[in-house]
Amino acid sequence: MSEVIALAKALINRKSVTPEDAGCQLMMQQWLSAAGFTNETMVFDDTTNLWARKGTAGPVFCFAGHTDVVPSGPEADWQTPPFEATEKEGFLHGRGAADMKGSLAAMLTATTRFVADYPDHKGSIAFLITSDEEGPFINGTTRVIDTLEARNEKIDWCIVGEPSSTSSIGDVVKNGRRGSLTADITFKGIQGHVAYPHLAKNPVHAATPALAELAQTHWDNGNAYFPPTSFQISNIHAGTGAGNVIPGALQVCCNFRFSTEVTDQQLITRTEAILQTHELDYEVKWTFNGQPFLTDAGELVTATQSAINQVTGRATELSTAGGTSDGRFIAPTGAQVVELGPVNATIHKVDEKVRMSDLQALEDIYYQILVRLLA
Amino acid sequence: MSEVIALAKALINRKSVTPEDAGCQLMMQQWLSAAGFTNETMVFDDTTNLWARKGTAGPVFCFAGHTDVVPSGPEADWQTPPFEATEKEGFLHGRGAADMKGSLAAMLTATTRFVADYPDHKGSIAFLITSDEEGPFINGTTRVIDTLEARNEKIDWCIVGEPSSTSSIGDVVKNGRRGSLTADITFKGIQGHVAYPHLAKNPVHAATPALAELAQTHWDNGNAYFPPTSFQISNIHAGTGAGNVIPGALQVCCNFRFSTEVTDQQLITRTEAILQTHELDYEVKWTFNGQPFLTDAGELVTATQSAINQVTGRATELSTAGGTSDGRFIAPTGAQVVELGPVNATIHKVDEKVRMSDLQALEDIYYQILVRLLA
Repeated sequence: MSEVIALAKALINRKSVTPEDAGCQLMMQQWLSAAGFTNETMVFDDTTNLWARKGTAGPVFCFAGHTDVVPSGPEADWQTPPFEATEKEGFLHGRGAADMKGSLAAMLTATTRFVADYPDHKGSIAFLITSDEEGPFINGTTRVIDTLEARNEKIDWCIVGEPSSTSSIGDVVKNGRRGSLTADITFKGIQGHVAYPHLAKNPVHAATPALAELAQTHWDNGNAYFPPTSFQISNIHAGTGAGNVIPGALQVCCNFRFSTEVTDQQLITRTEAILQTHELDYEVKWTFNGQPFLTDAGELVTATQSAINQVTGRATELSTAGGTSDGRFIAPTGAQVVELGPVNATIHKVDEKVRMSDLQALEDIYYQILVRLLA
Repeated sequence: MSEVIALAKALINRKSVTPEDAGCQLMMQQWLSAAGFTNETMVFDDTTNLWARKGTAGPVFCFAGHTDVVPSGPEADWQTPPFEATEKEGFLHGRGAADMKGSLAAMLTATTRFVADYPDHKGSIAFLITSDEEGPFINGTTRVIDTLEARNEKIDWCIVGEPSSTSSIGDVVKNGRRGSLTADITFKGIQGHVAYPHLAKNPVHAATPALAELAQTHWDNGNAYFPPTSFQISNIHAGTGAGNVIPGALQVCCNFRFSTEVTDQQLITRTEAILQTHELDYEVKWTFNGQPFLTDAGELVTATQSAINQVTGRATELSTAGGTSDGRFIAPTGAQVVELGPVNATIHKVDEKVRMSDLQALEDIYYQILVRLLA
């Protein structure tokens, strides 16, 4: 069995459901210590994080990722036990196989090979590993970055091991992500009996024209890297359950996924302007989940595209689609950030799996990126 | 203590929360038997109903009402125990004092006096009493009416003892009620992640323009007896609670209170036409709660206005405002129906009460109506 597969299996066998690390980082530390890394464990509340670094000079190349996984759901629904890595028809099955213990294994074996092949490489290599990426992301990457920033320790290039590929390894990498902004709005009315509407004020009637306008608003055109900003009402609730009571309040939760063509503050201003046009009595609580980020042309994108092409023969696609990732915490420091990992078809589902040959290819790609940037 | 107050107290002391009758109808039967009535108990499922009649000839004058009351809520919130009738500063306190055990007592004492004073009165006098008026109204008045209709037994004039008065006894009577029609609509979309809106279809976004149009629609102008038809959204729900999931369906419950200027079928047709204009994928379940009814000029209204004026000196107001009542089940048989009862300021609230002199006046008014119609 190859080293990368053995290591991925050992990680999968540890049941590290968010925020549990279940010893994964200790295993990684042992591996990294042998390769000459200095390990710094950063515990914030319930979350264990690892910052490991080899070298003190710049530029700093960093592998970023997470040891935690999402719950398996009922284990009986799985073809193989979710926390017992199992080989089957060329695939490695188990929770975290693709998101992202396979990537962690490939980062480790690529690094060991690179350090052995290029003992006098330039710059530094680092690992930023958390165990809360799948959870509330409060005590993970964001606090490690805060710690590094406080001591002026900078990352120049960062590969996040998120499963970016869609059908073949390396076919897509993420060179940015949209921003995310949430509004929880309470529209206030006056409760009453439906038979006496003149004594009540129905907040659903008052708010629907504004909600329709928000849903139809064109926020921007996007740009070469980002699709247009999207607004979605995710939750709407009013009413006591009784059919003869006019509700006293309407609760609406909505979410923006936004491009770099607008800022969170512009979206807030425009949303509130629309609400105010409709003369509504409302309160809104804004939750800012992350700025959009973009890593445009540069050494990291060039090295990544070239490495993928050398290993797989493919011309990779740059994408900013999909959800948020921990890249949003790293990019604002000025780092170039690219997400590159396995095929994401089975992530967060039962029977999560990764093609074993893809993990070997991913090790080779990571290795070739290191060669291009630090050899 | 006057007879009407003693009888009202005896009824209030029986804890007849819907659908319980708690022996109230038996007490009424004993009273009515003594006055020469034939009593017919009609039990439908959990509900006890009484149909009592004196005489076989027409025209048939009927007192209609209910022995059940709404729950008291925490008894500690009451100044006096809700199921112990208590005299206090000229008022009789207790659950049901105004809605409508006081009316039942007044009907009984008025009838006894009338029968004694006019032993050879023309026509028949009847009582239609249920114990589910405050509940689901499935096994009460509607089924008694069905039974009477099946044997072709008709009511010509009906006084319902609902508390119609607003500040002084007899200041308002209800000579009709609006219709009620409920729509439970499910708007269907496609669930998905907010980060991938092109793979989902948000039913909230699709439906809000239609809901806004329904809320703004002018359904009719009402008429001399009815306010304009009113549409209210009483409940609206979509979303899993998660902020990053586009909901797969939107549930909306809405209610019409409608005048005699439109029919339930017209409202259904117009509503569905609006929904179809917006090209929505929806299912709607219509629940018809009752036709509007109206008792225009006629013997009953004339006798009622004249009796009130004689007893109180007041010119009564005819109104069709407010919720539904069991009158909606009686009027469609062709009966003239008027609702006349005590001041409704405290009904369904803690410390429900009725002015004792109002009950005496109510007995006198009921008596004078009988005189005008049957003497």
